[in-house]
Amino acid sequence: MNVFQRITAAFDGTATAVSAHCDLPCGVYDPAQAKLEAQSVKACMEKYAASSDADFKVRATGIKEERAELVKHHLWVLWTDYFKPEHLEAHPTLHDLFWKATKSAGEAKKTNDVAVADRLLSEIDAIAEIFWATKK
Amino acid sequence: MNVFQRITAAFDGTATAVSAHCDLPCGVYDPAQAKLEAQSVKACMEKYAASSDADFKVRATGIKEERAELVKHHLWVLWTDYFKPEHLEAHPTLHDLFWKATKSAGEAKKTNDVAVADRLLSEIDAIAEIFWATKK
Amino acid sequence: MNVFQRITAAFDGTATAVSAHCDLPCGVYDPAQAKLEAQSVKACMEKYAASSDADFKVRATGIKEERAELVKHHLWVLWTDYFKPEHLEAHPTLHDLFWKATKSAGEAKKTNDVAVADRLLSEIDAIAEIFWATKK
Amino acid sequence: MNVFQRITAAFDGTATAVSAHCDLPCGVYDPAQAKLEAQSVKACMEKYAASSDADFKVRATGIKEERAELVKHHLWVLWTDYFKPEHLEAHPTLHDLFWKATKSAGEAKKTNDVAVADRLLSEIDAIAEIFWATKK
Amino acid sequence: MNVFQRITAAFDGTATAVSAHCDLPCGVYDPAQAKLEAQSVKACMEKYAASSDADFKVRATGIKEERAELVKHHLWVLWTDYFKPEHLEAHPTLHDLFWKATKSAGEAKKTNDVAVADRLLSEIDAIAEIFWATKK
Amino acid sequence: MNVFQRITAAFDGTATAVSAHCDLPCGVYDPAQAKLEAQSVKACMEKYAASSDADFKVRATGIKEERAELVKHHLWVLWTDYFKPEHLEAHPTLHDLFWKATKSAGEAKKTNDVAVADRLLSEIDAIAEIFWATKK
Repeated sequence: MNVFQRITAAFDGTATAVSAHCDLPCGVYDPAQAKLEAQSVKACMEKYAASSDADFKVRATGIKEERAELVKHHLWVLWTDYFKPEHLEAHPTLHDLFWKATKSAGEAKKTNDVAVADRLLSEIDAIAEIFWATKK
Repeated sequence: MNVFQRITAAFDGTATAVSAHCDLPCGVYDPAQAKLEAQSVKACMEKYAASSDADFKVRATGIKEERAELVKHHLWVLWTDYFKPEHLEAHPTLHDLFWKATKSAGEAKKTNDVAVADRLLSEIDAIAEIFWATKK
Repeated sequence: MNVFQRITAAFDGTATAVSAHCDLPCGVYDPAQAKLEAQSVKACMEKYAASSDADFKVRATGIKEERAELVKHHLWVLWTDYFKPEHLEAHPTLHDLFWKATKSAGEAKKTNDVAVADRLLSEIDAIAEIFWATKK
Repeated sequence: MNVFQRITAAFDGTATAVSAHCDLPCGVYDPAQAKLEAQSVKACMEKYAASSDADFKVRATGIKEERAELVKHHLWVLWTDYFKPEHLEAHPTLHDLFWKATKSAGEAKKTNDVAVADRLLSEIDAIAEIFWATKK
Repeated sequence: MNVFQRITAAFDGTATAVSAHCDLPCGVYDPAQAKLEAQSVKACMEKYAASSDADFKVRATGIKEERAELVKHHLWVLWTDYFKPEHLEAHPTLHDLFWKATKSAGEAKKTNDVAVADRLLSEIDAIAEIFWATKK
Repeated sequence: MNVFQRITAAFDGTATAVSAHCDLPCGVYDPAQAKLEAQSVKACMEKYAASSDADFKVRATGIKEERAELVKHHLWVLWTDYFKPEHLEAHPTLHDLFWKATKSAGEAKKTNDVAVADRLLSEIDAIAEIFWATKK
């Protein structure tokens, strides 16, 4: 079952939900924001590899840079704004996870190696797992 | 229980999902981006109403303005970049739906009436329904 | 020869004009904002074609991307914020015109074919014509 | 009555016009970009004065801040990117004009006194006059 | 006592300096970027307290929000992009320091209590001390 | 020799320091903001020259563009917001200095010639010298 099928399943024709963030704070957060930008980073790499058009490659490189920056931003917001000391106590790897994931996003700017995007995606999944555990 | 299932659970049976967009195009789109910012708009209204602190109200008003602008942006991107002529043919209300939803987002900047945010959210849901129908 | 006449001359009789917008709303709108960015998009294409310097081509590609995004933004604002239901009734092609024009702007990011920029410019002119008709 | 004539009428005979800019350079510049944002600044002041709704005043203040910043930006770009040493020689007040106009834009952030917006608009007109003189 | 001496004093003998950053990476980083925005945050609070003009207070609140966001951004960049595993090993409090400092910046958006800005400034000083220790 | 002494030396005895700016005004200004972005511009040029990786060169070109724009912005803010008529009287070259420095920043976007970045840096130093003279 691929990502899209999973999403389609999840939606079953119905609504979608999610969450956001802002420093009001509005109290709406969601690791999905970082994840979808990371998927975009990966897609840029794949489309870059599949193309032999120099201008397209320039565009893919520039857009990947921008999307990877958004990944970093969404993760930083989550780290600083959502997580509280009691979460850190329960999940002591939290700081390291975020540090590594944001470093992976930075690395993804510098390469078209899909393995880097995959690592970034799995780091975001690990963060999401903790995030949703704190929501239980 | 995987991340997606947890998200579904977290939202009491309503779905959440993940995709992005960019004009490469990376091919990753998702109405969830607009929805979460709209939820943030609604939360700003509710927190505004619950507060009696003038500075907080200033901040809530400013952040709502920003979030509502993001709703408009995400919807515009979806309308122009994702939807194709064949989608319009199958879903002739498409243009009107996007026009009304982006107008509602503009209206949400000007009021703290939660009914406007609720209308915006249901318009985004209607868009999401068409979006996912095109993905089937 | 006054300033306006000089401009008219410069633009060979095609129309263009001036006003702004904001979501206050301040009530100041103008298709010229989109038009001038579209002219910039076209100039980037022409300068790209005339150059054989790889770095210059990278810059032209990046700046064209940015300017085309501004075209989209200015058009979206006009569509959502300025036009009202009574305008749509009088000009039923409105939605389609904006959809096509913003799609052309997206296409202009992906190519250096001046014909795409010219089509975009003529679509903006068609929008401007309706815009000024509503102002009479 | 063509579009230009309508605009001329709308602006009571003072000049305004159209072109853009970018640092490629694309070669497309125009003082109209600054002028229309300045008109928006003035409209924000007028709407602020006419309203007794505290939230609306907050929004008008925030949007005026943003629009005044855009005035400054468009003027700075014109000053640095468009004007050349030979223009300065022919128009020795150039530096001072831009300095005063950008200072007026800054002042417009701090007040709702329409006289400041009017002064800003007339300073932009003076710049536009020189601009179009260099285009002859 | 000139500006340099005052700054030197402010840093109690630890250095502050001039550098930038970017994710090329250009290799130019500096905690001073965060510090000066934090000083701006503090100045906004002080000017807010000294004023009795409602519009000015709105502007001070909005600008403080923006400046505090810049503090967070500059600190996040430093944390993710500059610091390496060997730095963390030598300075095990690193993660916590950045977490607390960025949380203080978020808190500074919500209050005009100068004590919060002072705490933020001293947290940035502590980060600067480690930063410059790694440069020796 | 500590960092401060190195910086002091770098500025040939004139000071550089830490401050910010905003149009409140917060009263915190500093030419160091422009200088560090200019150093980043220079580093981008050097890293570009040292690399033979096409994608890296694309990224260096894009990031240099962005950083040079920041140099222009910080200088413009300083020129319009910090300097007052009495400063201009005492330092009549002020307008020209800023005009040339911002033009150099624009030129730095178009070339990888380090001499342009060096000229830009020395123009910023000349501005800093005047800036700190006004602070005495």
